[in-house]
Amino acid sequence: MSVDFSTDPTAQGFFAPMRFEADIEDCETQGEIPPELNGSFYRTCLDRRYPPRYADDTPYNADGAVDMFRIANGNVDFRTRYLRTARYTAERAAHRALFGRYRNRLTSDPSVAQLSHNTGNTTPLLFNGRLLCLKEDSPPMAVDPNTLETLCEWDFDGQMTARTFTAHPKLDPRTGELIAFSYEARGDATYDIAVFIFDAQGKLKRQWWFKSPVLSMMHDMAITDRHIIIPTTGMVTSRERLDAGLIHWTYDSSVPCHVAILPRDGSGEVRWFQGTPDQAMLLHTTNARTEGDRVILDAPVASANFHPYFPNADGSGFDVAGVSPNIRRWTFDLSSTRTDWDEEILFDGIRATSMVRIDDRFLGQPFRYSYILAVDPKMPFDRARGGNLSVRVANAWWRFDHANGTIDRAYVGSTHGLAEPQFVPRHRDAPEGDGWVIGVANDFSQMRSELVIVDAQQMQRGPVARVKLPFRLHTQVHGWWVAG
Amino acid sequence: MSVDFSTDPTAQGFFAPMRFEADIEDCETQGEIPPELNGSFYRTCLDRRYPPRYADDTPYNADGAVDMFRIANGNVDFRTRYLRTARYTAERAAHRALFGRYRNRLTSDPSVAQLSHNTGNTTPLLFNGRLLCLKEDSPPMAVDPNTLETLCEWDFDGQMTARTFTAHPKLDPRTGELIAFSYEARGDATYDIAVFIFDAQGKLKRQWWFKSPVLSMMHDMAITDRHIIIPTTGMVTSRERLDAGLIHWTYDSSVPCHVAILPRDGSGEVRWFQGTPDQAMLLHTTNARTEGDRVILDAPVASANFHPYFPNADGSGFDVAGVSPNIRRWTFDLSSTRTDWDEEILFDGIRATSMVRIDDRFLGQPFRYSYILAVDPKMPFDRARGGNLSVRVANAWWRFDHANGTIDRAYVGSTHGLAEPQFVPRHRDAPEGDGWVIGVANDFSQMRSELVIVDAQQMQRGPVARVKLPFRLHTQVHGWWVAG
Repeated sequence: MSVDFSTDPTAQGFFAPMRFEADIEDCETQGEIPPELNGSFYRTCLDRRYPPRYADDTPYNADGAVDMFRIANGNVDFRTRYLRTARYTAERAAHRALFGRYRNRLTSDPSVAQLSHNTGNTTPLLFNGRLLCLKEDSPPMAVDPNTLETLCEWDFDGQMTARTFTAHPKLDPRTGELIAFSYEARGDATYDIAVFIFDAQGKLKRQWWFKSPVLSMMHDMAITDRHIIIPTTGMVTSRERLDAGLIHWTYDSSVPCHVAILPRDGSGEVRWFQGTPDQAMLLHTTNARTEGDRVILDAPVASANFHPYFPNADGSGFDVAGVSPNIRRWTFDLSSTRTDWDEEILFDGIRATSMVRIDDRFLGQPFRYSYILAVDPKMPFDRARGGNLSVRVANAWWRFDHANGTIDRAYVGSTHGLAEPQFVPRHRDAPEGDGWVIGVANDFSQMRSELVIVDAQQMQRGPVARVKLPFRLHTQVHGWWVAG
Repeated sequence: MSVDFSTDPTAQGFFAPMRFEADIEDCETQGEIPPELNGSFYRTCLDRRYPPRYADDTPYNADGAVDMFRIANGNVDFRTRYLRTARYTAERAAHRALFGRYRNRLTSDPSVAQLSHNTGNTTPLLFNGRLLCLKEDSPPMAVDPNTLETLCEWDFDGQMTARTFTAHPKLDPRTGELIAFSYEARGDATYDIAVFIFDAQGKLKRQWWFKSPVLSMMHDMAITDRHIIIPTTGMVTSRERLDAGLIHWTYDSSVPCHVAILPRDGSGEVRWFQGTPDQAMLLHTTNARTEGDRVILDAPVASANFHPYFPNADGSGFDVAGVSPNIRRWTFDLSSTRTDWDEEILFDGIRATSMVRIDDRFLGQPFRYSYILAVDPKMPFDRARGGNLSVRVANAWWRFDHANGTIDRAYVGSTHGLAEPQFVPRHRDAPEGDGWVIGVANDFSQMRSELVIVDAQQMQRGPVARVKLPFRLHTQVHGWWVAG
């Protein structure tokens, strides 16, 4: 029973799993790390230890690993660790995969039927002294932010009673509150949604429980200073689907988008809006704000299935258009009884990815810039080396100016793919956009990964510094910056 | 003061340093690991943590790392660790290189003038429960053979009083004795040679001290059941050279080879033989035996400088011929007063490397097969990816049949370079040559290293199994197999 990934098309070339942990002191660096850049950049990543039990499983069901680039005084130290989940421990003892298709416990080995399938592989976020590594099908995995040692699956001292927890909670930069939601919150294929507000000390301040009109993936949310916004998608499931042993999700192009909006202060109940099916693939939000009675949400939104491993419900093949959203502005009028909303397309004609970030100091407030991962067709990509993926690898970071509609572009090299950009302000009180865009670039020519640092106000200059690792890194989902 | 290897031509592409430690459980495997293959394969490797203080320093002065492939029940676990030498510790604290040119302490930072410059980067060898990691300029580094934790610099409980210790001591397979020598044994640029015999329990049984006729590199030795054989080379040094701050060695093509032969039983003194300058680049021995009054040594011997970083004394440029020895048989007649010896060229016309091994159960005795690393000109090599080396990367293992003069060849792939072969017998009592040739192959197309396993009696079939690591490995010098 040997470990052999050679028949897995998602595990070839640069995308072969790492399967090791490492520390690197005094990382090799070209260029100069800005002396003001001081903090830790965390990434949660996909890294299968054992070949999947089912060839049609999604790479998003890989084991979770967390990386840390610690930057201080122009020097970078690197560390990567697997999350020691129940799944990691059980499969390590068995020397093979025991967990089955993504989020379908009926496809797992019976020996692990009662264990958490948490991978914690989606988003890292520091809250109240713990690095939370999040996967939306499970509670947070709590990790020591210095050692990356896994602490436990974390229920906020028993305050968080849902079975799941979003990978995209929002940390309010003004109040320090953590605002989160859970879907399928009472277990697989339940329509329950829970919403939680924790204060900066981790005390549960308010919660809501209500039902969703659809049983769909709800990957991200948004907040404003007054509201919480949670959209549904066309990526749906059902009890029957799970009982049939299928992967959790299927994309139903007839299902419209719904948006839940709640007042943060508890002054009212959830209000549901209903859009159209071509609005039903919002994976990540850019930012939102409340202006009077209007809630305004900016986000990349696609009109089709974003993931080839989640099949279309109508049996049609995967269409790459689903991974290429355009940037939309949705305006909800809370003063009227309308259940739909107004949509405006921003940056007309642009197709990016859904991997968008902002200067997090402006979360929930008026803002000007967003930073997005993009697939620039002008840049070459060595598909043979990158593996047999059905989509091109992203190779550019774009800065959107939401005030004047312009785009600034950063490339890091013709042989490099990129992960999600992370904005880091120059200092705590720097104006919006004054700082760096950092993130990992994958050099396919050398099969090495780099942390690259770009001046956010001079994107076109490309990296001012490159921190070169001696190996390929695993595929990042999301990253997180912690200053100081 | 950032770490930047970009200007070091020896640290590019596949030859960039690793600079990390890792463990991999249940290594990815293609093909089937022979179930009889049970033991640990150790490798000592070159892996600079910090860019060298001098651009003309030799890669052989890199920090030492030790790798372990643990093979059992068709499964392989891998571990790599740096040797925690005094140099490692001091440079880690300083975050930069402190030690200067190879084996010239006058070129080091004054803060480390009194510290050992031991790197332990040349040969691993298990003796009396300790994994000895050897570098000929220093005493052994003792390492835990299970954890690879560095224990100490080891003087055999005070019995080994020389300042240096060969990287190629011989473990007599019949008696369990360890037979070793030291040159520059009383310190840099001293003519003293010491020879030691330890019994299987590590007790010093006999020692000799005498002077060398030349102050030269003496990298390897040979034993027979009755004799110890130690050749000198044309790679020389001097006090003046060291005082001038130069790298330890220079190749003097006018210096003849000398060979010391001693009776193991202490029944006589050292006897010196003198050959010619074109015999003065014996780096490694194949094997030796005593037949009556004749001592017969087989070895790859070159006629010129083997290393571009050790300059020629006459100022001439590096000639690649020096790294391409032919296989020679030297016969010393102890019954006569002749001070020279007879030379026969084996495997006529063949140019290999000096990286030769045998079935170690036949060390010091009549034998039939040797296994050598070779540069096969028919095989392609991607120089750009491999780095700007002045010599081609070895890409084949050849089995020499010393009985009938034939050669069997193993290749592992058109994009693969190879490290030294290691013969592993099928079982303890298998006939000579019945077993496997194992070793590391470097896949330049994927920038990943593999442990490959070849049936020694079917070399031309190529690997029966490949154990694929997720990263490039550092450059091995020598390897060592420990059964069970």
